[in-house]
Amino acid sequence: MVNIGILGYGNLGRGVEKAVLKNPDMNLCAIFTRRNPADLNVNSNAQVVSIDEIENWKDKIDVLILCGGSATDLPVQTPKYAKMFNVVDSFDTHAKIPEHFENVDKAAKENNKTAIISVGWDPGLFSLNRLYANAILPDGNDYTFWGKGVSQGHSDAIRRIEGVLDAKQYTIPVDSALEAVRTGKNPELSTREKHTRECFVVLKDGADAKKVEEEIKTMPNYFADYDTTVHFISKEELDKNHSGIPHGGFVLRSGKTSDGVNHIIEYSLKLDSNPEFTSSVLVSYARAISRLNKEGVYGCKTVFDIAPAYLSTKTSEELRATML
Amino acid sequence: MVNIGILGYGNLGRGVEKAVLKNPDMNLCAIFTRRNPADLNVNSNAQVVSIDEIENWKDKIDVLILCGGSATDLPVQTPKYAKMFNVVDSFDTHAKIPEHFENVDKAAKENNKTAIISVGWDPGLFSLNRLYANAILPDGNDYTFWGKGVSQGHSDAIRRIEGVLDAKQYTIPVDSALEAVRTGKNPELSTREKHTRECFVVLKDGADAKKVEEEIKTMPNYFADYDTTVHFISKEELDKNHSGIPHGGFVLRSGKTSDGVNHIIEYSLKLDSNPEFTSSVLVSYARAISRLNKEGVYGCKTVFDIAPAYLSTKTSEELRATML
Repeated sequence: MVNIGILGYGNLGRGVEKAVLKNPDMNLCAIFTRRNPADLNVNSNAQVVSIDEIENWKDKIDVLILCGGSATDLPVQTPKYAKMFNVVDSFDTHAKIPEHFENVDKAAKENNKTAIISVGWDPGLFSLNRLYANAILPDGNDYTFWGKGVSQGHSDAIRRIEGVLDAKQYTIPVDSALEAVRTGKNPELSTREKHTRECFVVLKDGADAKKVEEEIKTMPNYFADYDTTVHFISKEELDKNHSGIPHGGFVLRSGKTSDGVNHIIEYSLKLDSNPEFTSSVLVSYARAISRLNKEGVYGCKTVFDIAPAYLSTKTSEELRATML
Repeated sequence: MVNIGILGYGNLGRGVEKAVLKNPDMNLCAIFTRRNPADLNVNSNAQVVSIDEIENWKDKIDVLILCGGSATDLPVQTPKYAKMFNVVDSFDTHAKIPEHFENVDKAAKENNKTAIISVGWDPGLFSLNRLYANAILPDGNDYTFWGKGVSQGHSDAIRRIEGVLDAKQYTIPVDSALEAVRTGKNPELSTREKHTRECFVVLKDGADAKKVEEEIKTMPNYFADYDTTVHFISKEELDKNHSGIPHGGFVLRSGKTSDGVNHIIEYSLKLDSNPEFTSSVLVSYARAISRLNKEGVYGCKTVFDIAPAYLSTKTSEELRATML
């Protein structure tokens, strides 16, 4: 059994709790929280423990899964807890991955622990597919499309506009762009040509819809470079039809092996719940990290460093006989 | 530089020759053949060498890529040459993989060589995707569809029918079945519901078309369980429109992380040339095998055992900075 601890009980922490239940070789021991443990209603038999007591669990947990945010939580938490536990995180600030890696690697190596960062689907499974496809088709082009799915960052940006009560934003890949890639045309695609943005907005009483729409559509970085549609709806409608957190996307590589001989490798995800799926990826890599630590492999890893067999409950013999 | 040798110069051997040219860190040293070397017209500067002299190349080649067939060549060649070289093969007789693995593993380990078997897209990339998707979504169903593409085995079966001069058979996935999987319906699909078979047949003079068509459609294992269409065409038309060897397919997993929360992972390939793409996969794993041997990792491996980073020319630092 792999004994799992969760740090942080938001959407991701609750997803990990569900994912552990789907894996009979795993045991959820404890959920660590910065809140008052008595205030947490969890959906499992895991013990709820104050973060202040986490050191007492050093010998009871094989892998601690860090479920905080990339902006402020993980840059501090992952190196800190990699001194005490084998850890898995979903750090997704692409530009800061090298720095984060170095910090976690040092902490883990000095304490004979094993860590893996940036696990999930992007970074994560999408990264894996970029690597495999690039290695196999060195003469080619990469394309990544996201959606259809809810962008938390864009939804938050709309909510900050004066007069907005609530909002959800969907990122939608442009079908004709996807099709152009699939036919091997190797198109050069602008930001606007790849994705559209669709916003469902609830206004506060007396707010100026025209002004809000204008402010959304011209917002730099977030919306100005995209074709954006804004729908004003009631709070009831938003809660009824837009409460899910679906997401997904496509990674494609189009490449040639000789003149006029083209190949398309396409990987796609269609996810009913972004946090539940991300959690499932975290848990499968927790299994790998627990094994590597037992083999005496220490330090920080990424999905690139993990042989696929480590993710599976099956032995190498079983994998060769049933999955190859 | 990784010094590559090729054994066997059919479609696959010619594909490997092209693939090596696309990889600047690789050098094609020699093509080994059972034929008279003087009779071989190769498309590179590689030396053409009789198979009888292969032992003289033991210290000049880092990886020997075996391009023979799975029925009779590879079961003998891979264990034999794993005693002298690091080797890569595309052995694809699924039921015999465990036995082949044991034979190659023993030969390689006894001689401090590194081998990898069953490399390509199925087995190979499709196997990888089955493993990753199963580890991430343990509660789900797997689906594999092949095509649209040419099946060599089915084309050969038609050619053996009396009255048939030549033939090409395409395996075609049924769109409605694929769509049913993509919507998360988890359908149970019969053989007939998953694929159709389309045959282009050139008759010999005086052959009975009706009889040939009947014989194709009722052929056990090959066609009887499928909806099969037969087109009779001229030899000129066959050569003009059906001379390529395209293939591809789809690996899907549909799985739940909690009640009513479903996810679809889909991987697909659309290949202009089956042998050229397979060759490109072989070459990327040759890079990995060469590295593992230098690290002192010996014995037989499969794609499940190779950490993805080993396939890439980039360093781990570069991969983290650019592809994660």
